[in-house]
Amino acid sequence: MPRCRVCGRRAKYYVPWSNAWFCPEHFIRYVERSVFRVYEKYIGGRHRRVLFAVSGGKDSVSLLHILAPKLLSEGVDVSILFIDLGIEGYTSKALKIVEENASMLKIPLIVSRLRDYGYTITDVAELYFKKLLRRPVCSICGMVKRYLMNRIAYEEGYDLVLTGHTLDDAAAFTLVNILSGRIDELVKIKPYNPGNHKLIARGKPLLFTYEAETKWYVEARNLPVLRVKCPYTPVEEGLVSEIKAMLHRLEERHPGIMRMYMRNLIDKLQPAISREIKESRLVYCSVCGMPSSTDPCGFCRIRSRILELKRGVEG
Amino acid sequence: MPRCRVCGRRAKYYVPWSNAWFCPEHFIRYVERSVFRVYEKYIGGRHRRVLFAVSGGKDSVSLLHILAPKLLSEGVDVSILFIDLGIEGYTSKALKIVEENASMLKIPLIVSRLRDYGYTITDVAELYFKKLLRRPVCSICGMVKRYLMNRIAYEEGYDLVLTGHTLDDAAAFTLVNILSGRIDELVKIKPYNPGNHKLIARGKPLLFTYEAETKWYVEARNLPVLRVKCPYTPVEEGLVSEIKAMLHRLEERHPGIMRMYMRNLIDKLQPAISREIKESRLVYCSVCGMPSSTDPCGFCRIRSRILELKRGVEG
Repeated sequence: MPRCRVCGRRAKYYVPWSNAWFCPEHFIRYVERSVFRVYEKYIGGRHRRVLFAVSGGKDSVSLLHILAPKLLSEGVDVSILFIDLGIEGYTSKALKIVEENASMLKIPLIVSRLRDYGYTITDVAELYFKKLLRRPVCSICGMVKRYLMNRIAYEEGYDLVLTGHTLDDAAAFTLVNILSGRIDELVKIKPYNPGNHKLIARGKPLLFTYEAETKWYVEARNLPVLRVKCPYTPVEEGLVSEIKAMLHRLEERHPGIMRMYMRNLIDKLQPAISREIKESRLVYCSVCGMPSSTDPCGFCRIRSRILELKRGVEG
Repeated sequence: MPRCRVCGRRAKYYVPWSNAWFCPEHFIRYVERSVFRVYEKYIGGRHRRVLFAVSGGKDSVSLLHILAPKLLSEGVDVSILFIDLGIEGYTSKALKIVEENASMLKIPLIVSRLRDYGYTITDVAELYFKKLLRRPVCSICGMVKRYLMNRIAYEEGYDLVLTGHTLDDAAAFTLVNILSGRIDELVKIKPYNPGNHKLIARGKPLLFTYEAETKWYVEARNLPVLRVKCPYTPVEEGLVSEIKAMLHRLEERHPGIMRMYMRNLIDKLQPAISREIKESRLVYCSVCGMPSSTDPCGFCRIRSRILELKRGVEG
């Protein structure tokens, strides 16, 4: 019977990349410490008003429970942001989970509704399936979330937004960027982006945390998480998922290789890439006033297109 | 029955990354043209005395037959270098093959013997198996070949050394460098290194050529190539081979992805990496006078260690 490395009691979780067994209690501490270390190394104590973007999935729920109590104990003002994308049969379940977590931790919850901008992701999906929109639903949805996260944080005076991006996705995504030569995308994936003016600083404290760790963390702590998938998750998955599956096979034979890669990417490769590549020039959108690389910004452009299409479909 | 894309005759070779069938004759032309393009783009016509490093394997033999006649027709002085590593039961076969190719093309052959420096790779392997040397045989052999290639080219007045490194190995090797954060190694893999003074320019015109292409090229042209493996090829292969196998699986589903990656690495990622990383300071070895990052150079250090060990073993 395997024993916990810390207390010698019956172990439940084997962490191959640390070659260690843990009981649930010490597994929880192990994950929390590793996330604290990332937070301290890359993000630090300079932020006083922190917004956790929580979807209700295992990653963002883990992040919230790992980091929010610590920040609260340090006197940081903490809130949760839930983005209501208006996905029928999905968003309401997700919101319930997030409300449950917010009240467990007694943290204020801000709900931002895409519907307030005149449409929902269900509208986007319908237009896409009717071939009236060519850009995939997930791509629009991702852009919308990034936009709203930043806009709410700016309007409500937060100085840091934290998201639950984990190692597995980031490793696969950055490798695809390397394979396809998208250097500008490659340098954007970081544990910390400092932001400026209307671009609020953003942190990814789980960037070195395996998905398996957040899965076991919510299990060990019995946290409420959303168990259903978004209905628009594509059946046929793309290159990123393929590379992710490859990385998982590689990880089986070389435990820790994904984390090693991410550390090398962040600490060695990205700093070696010249500054010119890093900084894409920002302008302010003439419609909404938020920072963007184009004018109008991606959000306002797609929004006006969708509202126009909706009028066409309905009219 | 598939038809050749060029002449419509019965096709024999399917090239998935170009989605094209070719008859043997037009496959040969297709490969030759693609290598000429790489040579012209990255290496160009500035070199007048070119040394082909030929091992006898399919890659270096292909390179020789693709490029040497073209360079000769342009009035370039061309020779072949064979490095006699003194591998029992292997080197003599390889030399015969290289001699055959040299006389087919009527190109002078220079044979450089490691034995003239007091030892052979068979000595290295024996010391390694006796655990008197810790550095793997292939690692020492690779260093020895790079050293002798450069030294012979310098001493004999060549201004360019060409080697048969193909896409498959280079893609796997550079990806391992990315995973392990060896940025200095990553920027070394290029189609062209200009060299300076005693460091002779080096070219890898097959850097965008798949191994499958050289395999079919020697088959289509019925060229003499070495069919045996070096006896010291490790049975248990390392991370590079594993990544290479992964890339081959990925290539099956995404034909051309390895070549796309290599183009992006060479044309986008490497140029984005700052100059400081690229240039490791060179000194001249106080023993042999050749350029190196250490003094004495790797070749002279390992040589004196091996000669000492040989005296010990024999004495």
